[in-house]
Order: sequence, then C-alpha cells, then structure tokens
Amino acid sequence: MPYVNIQVTREGVTSDQKAALIKGTTDLLVDVLGKSPSTTFVVIEEVALENWGIGGLPVAGFRAAASKS
Amino acid sequence: MPYVNIQVTREGVTSDQKAALIKGTTDLLVDVLGKSPSTTFVVIEEVALENWGIGGLPVAGFRAAASKS
Amino acid sequence: MPYVNIQVTREGVTSDQKAALIKGTTDLLVDVLGKSPSTTFVVIEEVALENWGIGGLPVAGFRAAASKS
Amino acid sequence: MPYVNIQVTREGVTSDQKAALIKGTTDLLVDVLGKSPSTTFVVIEEVALENWGIGGLPVAGFRAAASKS
Amino acid sequence: MPYVNIQVTREGVTSDQKAALIKGTTDLLVDVLGKSPSTTFVVIEEVALENWGIGGLPVAGFRAAASKS
Amino acid sequence: MPYVNIQVTREGVTSDQKAALIKGTTDLLVDVLGKSPSTTFVVIEEVALENWGIGGLPVAGFRAAASKS
Repeated sequence: MPYVNIQVTREGVTSDQKAALIKGTTDLLVDVLGKSPSTTFVVIEEVALENWGIGGLPVAGFRAAASKS
Repeated sequence: MPYVNIQVTREGVTSDQKAALIKGTTDLLVDVLGKSPSTTFVVIEEVALENWGIGGLPVAGFRAAASKS
Repeated sequence: MPYVNIQVTREGVTSDQKAALIKGTTDLLVDVLGKSPSTTFVVIEEVALENWGIGGLPVAGFRAAASKS
Repeated sequence: MPYVNIQVTREGVTSDQKAALIKGTTDLLVDVLGKSPSTTFVVIEEVALENWGIGGLPVAGFRAAASKS
Repeated sequence: MPYVNIQVTREGVTSDQKAALIKGTTDLLVDVLGKSPSTTFVVIEEVALENWGIGGLPVAGFRAAASKS
Repeated sequence: MPYVNIQVTREGVTSDQKAALIKGTTDLLVDVLGKSPSTTFVVIEEVALENWGIGGLPVAGFRAAASKS
C-alpha cells in the first residue's frame, strides 16, 4: 500500500502527463516491489514557480542565472 | 505537539466539514496521547481529482472503471 | 481516498495507541466526509525529540524553559 | 542535498518574502551542515486559513478566541 | 526540479529495489515531463507495519482480516 | 503558525547542528513573516543514504560518479 507524492513546478502539466505519471509510478511499484495497484496512491502537487527555490533563488531567478553562466 | 496532514480529493469539502476534521483530529490526539490542543496543528490539503491516482488511474477513471465491474 | 500523516514525538507510543489513532482518524473521515475505510491510509511518523523544534528550541529545551516560566 | 518544505497560512506572502525565505533557508543549510546550494530545494506551501487548525479550531476561530482571553 | 516521496511499509526492501525505484521514478519524470535527472530528488520512506493503517486497522490486522474474507 | 520539514541525508548530524537548524529556521520565519516562535514547528527528518536518490542514482552512487567527471 504505497503512497507516492510527486512535487513539480506548475508549468502547464497536462491531464495526459499526469495520467502518465500516475500509471508509470504505479507500474514501477508493482514491478519492483510487487505492490497491488488498488492500494497504491499517487498524489501530484504542482508548485508555483515563485514558491520553489533552488540554489538559494526562486526557480525563475535560478534559471536566469544559470543561462548566463 | 503533533502535526497532522490530511489529504483528500477536492470535491466541495465545506468549511464546516473542515472544522469538524480539525476538531475531531485534535480531540483524538488529546484522548489517545494526552497531547495539548494548543500545540496540535492540523493541515488539510485538497487535491484536484486529476492529480490523485489510485489503481494506476486518475480518480475519475478509477471510479468509472470500478462502477463497471 | 484520503491519506493522513500524523507526526508525533517519539516518546513510547504503544501499538494500542497507534491502533487507536488509526481507527479514530479513519472513523472521522468516514463520518465527516463519507470516505471509504478501505481506501483511507493513515501513516504515523515518530520523530526523535531532538529532531522536533518549537519556540526556536528542540522539544526538550522548550519544555525545560516552559516549566520555569 | 536537502529538501525543505515550509508551510504557512495563505495571508498575502509576497514574492520578496518568499525569496527571503528561500535564501535564508538555503544559507542556513550551507552554514550549519555545509550543504551545496545547487542541490538544496525549498518548497513553500501556502495553506488557506480554513484548512489550518490549531487548538482544535480553524485559525480564524482560534485567533478570535485567543484575542478574547 | 521534481521532488518525489515514496512511502512503503518496512518489509525488507533491498538496496537493489531502492535503486530500481530511484532510477524508474527519475526516468519517468525525464520521459513524461522532460525534467533533468540532476535536479530530480527521490526520497524513500519505510514505515513500520504498526505505523501504517488501512481500513481502520494497522496493516497486519488488515491483512489478517482480508485473508479471512 | 508555520510548519517546516527539513529532510537531509543521515550522515552524523549532531544535536548542536539540529538545534542550530531549529533556531535559524524559526528566526527566519519571525524576521521575514513576523510569525510567533511559540507556534512555529520545525521537524528534521534524516534519510538513509540508500533511500535518497539524485540523478537517477542513490546518493553514494551519484557522488562516486560525480567525483569521476
């Protein structure tokens, strides 16, 4: 009975992509650990760009800095 | 000083229902573990249907499949 | 299909207390939101005292300070 | 490669304040544990007032009760 | 820069299985969303059986009840 | 009333370092958002190296690969 939480930046993830993440993650847990799909939860959280930090900067600032280096 | 995170699908949970979840969870921690309500946090997260997967499918697809079986 | 995560300090929570937390939380979600128990997960995490902070101090220090005031 | 999740009530946190939280948290992990900023994630989650409980009440009710005492 | 948290019951998951979960999840995020592996974190949490509840019971009790039905 | 969850690899973090993380995080939330320390929780989770993945590999493998490049 696994629970998987996937956090990604909110940048236009489509319903099809979400369905693919859910299916792929569930298949993985079935294949690797023999878990049952019916008790496998996958929860996707989309996080606004300004709420996600990396390298000490919000994502937008981090990408701008990285593209200059 | 417990912290409780409740994740449910976003399907019209009312303010009264949220208040009932907060009160019920807090009472439970007081009753079972003797915790203090003033240092008990309850955070409710509502998750869009297409962001929640079970059985390898987003919830809507899972329910549709289940209702046929 | 709710998922509930309960974090408490690791201070000798017994198996019976854990079972009571699981039952109480599940009943609450059934009563308040009409959820199905079979797709309700409750995960309890026990956190070492020195890993939990409140008031800017690890729990032990916080309690010592509070008992003096 | 730390991951930090900061949950606060949704009450008009500005982009500048979010950037300050990201920078401050990252600096702290660099200073205290010698972590690399480039593999330090900070994710801020803003929670609606009615979804956050303390003292057995949603935040608004808790504050109203506290201001009377 | 995704962050993925995988929670499973602690039942002898091997290092190889953990590596397979990490590789499979990362590949999935690369394939579906075009994410970079170097900024994709996967954290596996193993939860003691008595700390995981389903159907209002700790896992062991739930399985025992299910095997009788 | 913020809740902060800090996840780091389990590599000998000392009690003093944990106390410094707790104090630093709490001070940051007081300074940036004017939060009250007495309702600020900081929870540190230490994750075994083989349970943390980056770049599609467990941390140990990732570091070994990085040191060769």
